[in-house]
Amino acid sequence: MFAELPFFPEKFVSALPLPLKEILSQRFGRAFSTGESQRLQHGRDESVHPPMLPDAVVQIGSTEEAVEVARLCSEYGVPLIPYGVGSSVEGHVLAPQGGISLDLSGMNKIVAIHAEDGDATVQAGVTRMQLNEALKGTGLFFPIDPGADATLGGMAATRASGTNAVRYGTMKDNVLATTTVLADGRVLQTGGRARKSSAGYDLTRLLVGSEGTLGIMTELTVKLYPIPEAISAAVCTFPSIAAAVQAVIQTIQLGVPVARIELLDQLALAAINRFSKTTLAEAPTLFFEFHGSPAGVAEQAETVQALASELGGTDFAWATRPEERSRLWQARHDAYFACLQLKPGCRCFPTDVCVPISRLAECIAETQTDIAQVSIPIALFGHVGDGNFHLVVLVDPDNPKEMEEAAWISARVVERAIAMEGTCTGEHGIGLGKRKYLQREHGEVAVAVMQALKDALDPRGLLNPEKILFAKTPQIPGESSPARNRMTD
Amino acid sequence: MFAELPFFPEKFVSALPLPLKEILSQRFGRAFSTGESQRLQHGRDESVHPPMLPDAVVQIGSTEEAVEVARLCSEYGVPLIPYGVGSSVEGHVLAPQGGISLDLSGMNKIVAIHAEDGDATVQAGVTRMQLNEALKGTGLFFPIDPGADATLGGMAATRASGTNAVRYGTMKDNVLATTTVLADGRVLQTGGRARKSSAGYDLTRLLVGSEGTLGIMTELTVKLYPIPEAISAAVCTFPSIAAAVQAVIQTIQLGVPVARIELLDQLALAAINRFSKTTLAEAPTLFFEFHGSPAGVAEQAETVQALASELGGTDFAWATRPEERSRLWQARHDAYFACLQLKPGCRCFPTDVCVPISRLAECIAETQTDIAQVSIPIALFGHVGDGNFHLVVLVDPDNPKEMEEAAWISARVVERAIAMEGTCTGEHGIGLGKRKYLQREHGEVAVAVMQALKDALDPRGLLNPEKILFAKTPQIPGESSPARNRMTD
Repeated sequence: MFAELPFFPEKFVSALPLPLKEILSQRFGRAFSTGESQRLQHGRDESVHPPMLPDAVVQIGSTEEAVEVARLCSEYGVPLIPYGVGSSVEGHVLAPQGGISLDLSGMNKIVAIHAEDGDATVQAGVTRMQLNEALKGTGLFFPIDPGADATLGGMAATRASGTNAVRYGTMKDNVLATTTVLADGRVLQTGGRARKSSAGYDLTRLLVGSEGTLGIMTELTVKLYPIPEAISAAVCTFPSIAAAVQAVIQTIQLGVPVARIELLDQLALAAINRFSKTTLAEAPTLFFEFHGSPAGVAEQAETVQALASELGGTDFAWATRPEERSRLWQARHDAYFACLQLKPGCRCFPTDVCVPISRLAECIAETQTDIAQVSIPIALFGHVGDGNFHLVVLVDPDNPKEMEEAAWISARVVERAIAMEGTCTGEHGIGLGKRKYLQREHGEVAVAVMQALKDALDPRGLLNPEKILFAKTPQIPGESSPARNRMTD
Repeated sequence: MFAELPFFPEKFVSALPLPLKEILSQRFGRAFSTGESQRLQHGRDESVHPPMLPDAVVQIGSTEEAVEVARLCSEYGVPLIPYGVGSSVEGHVLAPQGGISLDLSGMNKIVAIHAEDGDATVQAGVTRMQLNEALKGTGLFFPIDPGADATLGGMAATRASGTNAVRYGTMKDNVLATTTVLADGRVLQTGGRARKSSAGYDLTRLLVGSEGTLGIMTELTVKLYPIPEAISAAVCTFPSIAAAVQAVIQTIQLGVPVARIELLDQLALAAINRFSKTTLAEAPTLFFEFHGSPAGVAEQAETVQALASELGGTDFAWATRPEERSRLWQARHDAYFACLQLKPGCRCFPTDVCVPISRLAECIAETQTDIAQVSIPIALFGHVGDGNFHLVVLVDPDNPKEMEEAAWISARVVERAIAMEGTCTGEHGIGLGKRKYLQREHGEVAVAVMQALKDALDPRGLLNPEKILFAKTPQIPGESSPARNRMTD
């Protein structure tokens, strides 16, 4: 059933080398744990991936503590896996080779807010909502908003984005600088607070999206944006997904600087209504948000409304008061969880393709044909202004037929997106689940280059092993590799 | 006099290994040259760096030809230096260890324009003006505009930007994908045409700004933007540089989405008037450009004009007709060359610092105090919306006192910018001239990591040696290294 996932903990037994366990226990006290509940909590994420437990969890509060743990892991040859809030959907926090889960959620200090420069420096465990809370009164906000209230460290590691990316970019565009702990415990500073620089290799953007496999980001400096003078949101219902997608394509091609443009299908709307107690029409729907000056926002909205009407868009409903807007976008953010409630006890097999906008209508139409062929419920929504959409494929992980159907749908949509010059993941990351597509998407040379970079920075493959790249033969004959030997405790 | 530049060709003699010379000559015919004039043309740039000649020049027309040359250079251990139009100002195209200058200017095909997706794929030798010419009629434009009509390959390699960066970003934000030839001749595909992706390490952004030291980009896919419905430009004169800088800071902090905001000092204006036959007031001046809908542009312009007036800005002159605007921005782009004309026979010792906007006024004020202490003419202008400004330090390279003064000014402004959390180079690159500041800016660990990445992709250091990073001991005892041995021909 989990045939695609070669690793599974044979038993819930910590395999940490005893001397390391003693050192960590003495040094970190209660912040160090080998207890099963802690390990189970840190060995799973929001996805369908079965849990893979670390041997221990260390909760840290500073870069210096990350350095200490990294040095010890390096000394003992033990894998080290960064953990934020565990909201990944590609198995990023799982521990297929055991090792230590480094919990950065306690690193939640806002280090500095430079309102005049529009940037903030935060510890990696700060969440996006926490940052926006701290920005109240500054007139600034941080726009990147994946569904979950993820940590900024986790968001940087997976190159996350969300509903605002069409206007404000993704984490790759919004991380200016990092403090990163390398596999051997050295502390790397990347980037800086200048808005642009041509000074050497762009290490910041190499780390953003590296999923904890090249280094562990412990501090980040991110861009902030002035809260627009005027904001208005709207919901519009369409006769078909195809018509809604056409409205998106025309909006983007006209260059309307829309801040958010989200597509949700009928099933997603039904799930939202049930979960969020809303009364939205249960039909293909676009959620819009416009940012700018009052005149600018009005102008954008008129353009889009005219264009939507021509495509059969109806019930153009406006939300201009902040509470209405918040309610609308909270409902959108909860769509993933709302869908999960459609089928009690189910898990989500998520897909995350992104294609050039000119191929979006075709990609979604062909995908709908696939969806019609399977028995499991599948909702479709996404950040279509970027060409990115998700299928929320609801499965019972213990039902082989459902898992087979989910795997089929997922493979089909990925292959279709890659054939259309798109990507297998717009914002979730490769993790464990998309490794098999990396070479298909980027080619053999690109994967070899990625491996060469990994080898250069983490020659023993201790940082978040098995993520992005398949680990090399895990056990070298004759080499002592205590953490991989699961017979001790 | 060139004490800071350790390399100089002892004699204008090609030191290419004879068998390699024969192979290249047979294969490339007249596109291969060891003639002195070709080598001199390819061994110098626009800067004060003394020429350093390659041993030969190969003009290529395709990625396949780049592969052939890279394989041969790898086989013979000969340095390989990419060349576009030679408009670098940090010695990027110079050949301190000799080797082959790979001239990509013949790779000037527009491969594809995807108007509906807002991207274009071009060969690396296409220049920015050529691309914009090809876009006529599509309603799209490519905004990145360094002063020179550089090639897109060269612009990507140096992470270039220009006057539009405050609105449209730099090359790091606008290259979606590359085809890159590695040191060993393998062809690497990076990125893709999807607007966002979380699929693996961001190799595109590692290559952008790598100055030809990690691979040679032969094709690029870049983002395009809709030509704004309305554009207006304006010129405004200020009583002091400080007042002009305050206007910039307030504009940016208010979040006005200005497309261009350029500062020029009195000397730069005098140079422009003389060179471009304009009659602009010879005083500290801001050039603005606003992009958007007619209403949006009017709104932006009103906000900025009100704010400028409060700071003593006068003579707010508008250029709304395309010819007027073009003339204005052509004059701005020619500012560098205009300054060079102020002192016949001089060369420019350029500086290129960029600081957080909150430090810009202080950084410029302290720099003006330094300027007042030297005898050489120094113009100041720059892309101040990003916190980036240049000193155009005019020197006679044969006058030791002038070179000493220039080096002093340059060192002072770089140290000041780094102390203010800025960068030694906002858009020119490190090249030969800024290597000594790389560690100061990014720290020892960052430079070690950059070296590790270089070693991973180009273990013998053949790609554009001595750029960004100092070469390791160039001659390993016992190793035959024909290209570095200048006694053969």
